[in-house]
Amino acid sequence: MVNYFSSEFKLGILGGGQLGKMMLYETRKLDIQTYVMDPNPQAPGRLACDHFTDGDLMDFDTVYSFGKKVDVLTFEIESVNVDALELLEKEGTKVYPEAATLRKIQNKGRQKQLYADRGIPTADFAVFATKVELVASIEQQDTKLPFVWKSTQGGYDGKGVAIIKSEKELAKLPDTECIAEALVPFKNELAVIVARNVSGEIKTYPVVEMEFHPEANQVEYVLCPARISDAIAKKAIDIATRVSQAFDHVGILAVELFLTQDDEILVNEVAPRPHNSGHYSIEASFTNQFEQHIRCILDLPLGATESKLAGIMVNLTGAEGFSGPVTYENIKEVMTLPGVTPHIYGKKETRPFRKMGHVTIVNKDINTARQIAEKVKDMLRVISK
Amino acid sequence: MVNYFSSEFKLGILGGGQLGKMMLYETRKLDIQTYVMDPNPQAPGRLACDHFTDGDLMDFDTVYSFGKKVDVLTFEIESVNVDALELLEKEGTKVYPEAATLRKIQNKGRQKQLYADRGIPTADFAVFATKVELVASIEQQDTKLPFVWKSTQGGYDGKGVAIIKSEKELAKLPDTECIAEALVPFKNELAVIVARNVSGEIKTYPVVEMEFHPEANQVEYVLCPARISDAIAKKAIDIATRVSQAFDHVGILAVELFLTQDDEILVNEVAPRPHNSGHYSIEASFTNQFEQHIRCILDLPLGATESKLAGIMVNLTGAEGFSGPVTYENIKEVMTLPGVTPHIYGKKETRPFRKMGHVTIVNKDINTARQIAEKVKDMLRVISK
Repeated sequence: MVNYFSSEFKLGILGGGQLGKMMLYETRKLDIQTYVMDPNPQAPGRLACDHFTDGDLMDFDTVYSFGKKVDVLTFEIESVNVDALELLEKEGTKVYPEAATLRKIQNKGRQKQLYADRGIPTADFAVFATKVELVASIEQQDTKLPFVWKSTQGGYDGKGVAIIKSEKELAKLPDTECIAEALVPFKNELAVIVARNVSGEIKTYPVVEMEFHPEANQVEYVLCPARISDAIAKKAIDIATRVSQAFDHVGILAVELFLTQDDEILVNEVAPRPHNSGHYSIEASFTNQFEQHIRCILDLPLGATESKLAGIMVNLTGAEGFSGPVTYENIKEVMTLPGVTPHIYGKKETRPFRKMGHVTIVNKDINTARQIAEKVKDMLRVISK
Repeated sequence: MVNYFSSEFKLGILGGGQLGKMMLYETRKLDIQTYVMDPNPQAPGRLACDHFTDGDLMDFDTVYSFGKKVDVLTFEIESVNVDALELLEKEGTKVYPEAATLRKIQNKGRQKQLYADRGIPTADFAVFATKVELVASIEQQDTKLPFVWKSTQGGYDGKGVAIIKSEKELAKLPDTECIAEALVPFKNELAVIVARNVSGEIKTYPVVEMEFHPEANQVEYVLCPARISDAIAKKAIDIATRVSQAFDHVGILAVELFLTQDDEILVNEVAPRPHNSGHYSIEASFTNQFEQHIRCILDLPLGATESKLAGIMVNLTGAEGFSGPVTYENIKEVMTLPGVTPHIYGKKETRPFRKMGHVTIVNKDINTARQIAEKVKDMLRVISK
């Protein structure tokens, strides 16, 4: 086995945002040497790595030369230059998840097509190369209103996604390759974190349940375990496992799911990296998703995915009406609540709905945790003074 | 309240060993700006802080000028220049634990005298300014063999401590101020971690039980909770709380205790900082000792000290017969065991008995955890190839 610990081995991480930052807690814990690159010289991941470079993650040469410095390369964001990853792989650098996996996931049209090809349940959809084609399809009544519009590339945190209810709303859409997806009336949004290592060992985390902020289209609470029946949980986990295998995914894969009114499970989309829906695992799980990702990509045995306690994650997003140097109002009061851990990502400026941090609440009882979570949400405001 | 998070506030930490390193996980989590100083430019705490300086922690000017850069100063090691801390305090820098507290603890003679003065139970002792005085006391039979010899200053990890059974063993003792302490026949070594913030809020962690390596005089296992009766646990916690108050201690205080054959609790010694006996808390407690220390010294509310699960910590020390670049033999096999988290401190070279890391085992059942801990201990070897 390669000696990863306190050795000359080098792990590269593309992206040094909050996910990269939290991954570095684990590389420090195991004393694995790290190289991090992010376009922002003030990125949270600039600290705690061994070497930080600022550089454009979409630029071929920049990604390629960064990758040449390391033994294993991973990423905390999907928007990276995949051509560079492919060449690096050809030349012997290990890239996990693999370039081919990322290529399939990066394009939402291709991602959906794979579900269709493999018989993995997902909402009906059609792919359009341009906006003109989409509009034509609507005029011909092949695509029916309302529908969910998604840009095939670059969507993130509610960007690149829109619910289109009337033809006049089409005006605001950019002219890009896109998919039109049937609007599924769902009871619940669920997610399953799947971990798969290089050797193919797979473990899944318990199903989590997400509650969204009605305006910002951002997750407000993530609850683990989801308050669903064992039968539905089993179905969700089986589908998520098939998704991981379909992509030959190595690392943490977050599989977002819809639970329909008829108790059907549909795959919404995936993220091939540690994910917001798995942040609860830092405090609640035997092995948190960041350590698990490291275990996966270094082909170490996977850690236990069970929970120590029920966990709820509250996203800390910038309050509306505030932009500027950040203050966390009432954080002291929130820290008096039992089992509450704030995570501050380290962005100096707040903006409305910007992800600034999260808070985890753990408790033996999920309902108690949910009550505390609501207090946290009501008290703690991300503002500027 | 001071805005500590993602702000210009500066926390200084004297010492960047493994304790400083683990403290930095928490300052990163809360995005608190940190300055770290350690004599070793390769110290584990050189990463994850905002600013690292190498410098002598015992040198007045070095500590003073470092302290002038920060708003609050703390330490992860007792061997720091206390005169500099005193001057910094006079000039307005907040130092926690306070210089006066550290001065009382740094000298084991003064520490023991405080217990005597406050009626806190501790083994009988006498202080000697020189070795000549000690020898004279033995000759006059005021001090009786066997006894425990301790240097009043600078003892650490079994250094500066010796059990003296015969007069010929006196030859190996250095000529320093020392104490001779009655050899207590004890059933068990226990410890209580006490947290106290600037406002005086106090919380205690559950009593832990320590098992020592018979030769190296280093802790081999720490078990939480200790397998003792509630009555004894209550007594231990009461005494530890009194010790924290006696020292006006702010921060984490580890109180090491003996449980005698007669179920008496005696205070052995204290460490005014996060401590080996509290490492289990990273995985097992609602609030780990490093986050708690930060909460204490910034006068934030204390977090819950209860455990999520039973926890056992195994120290990873260098195997006998190996010196050189470190390898962690069988670490992959150890990582297959459930609820096992290795912590690798990041020292590149191993030496016999050198503290290289620790492993935490969490489980619902302490006896199962203890069995897994023994497997970890038997399998994982810190060697050099």
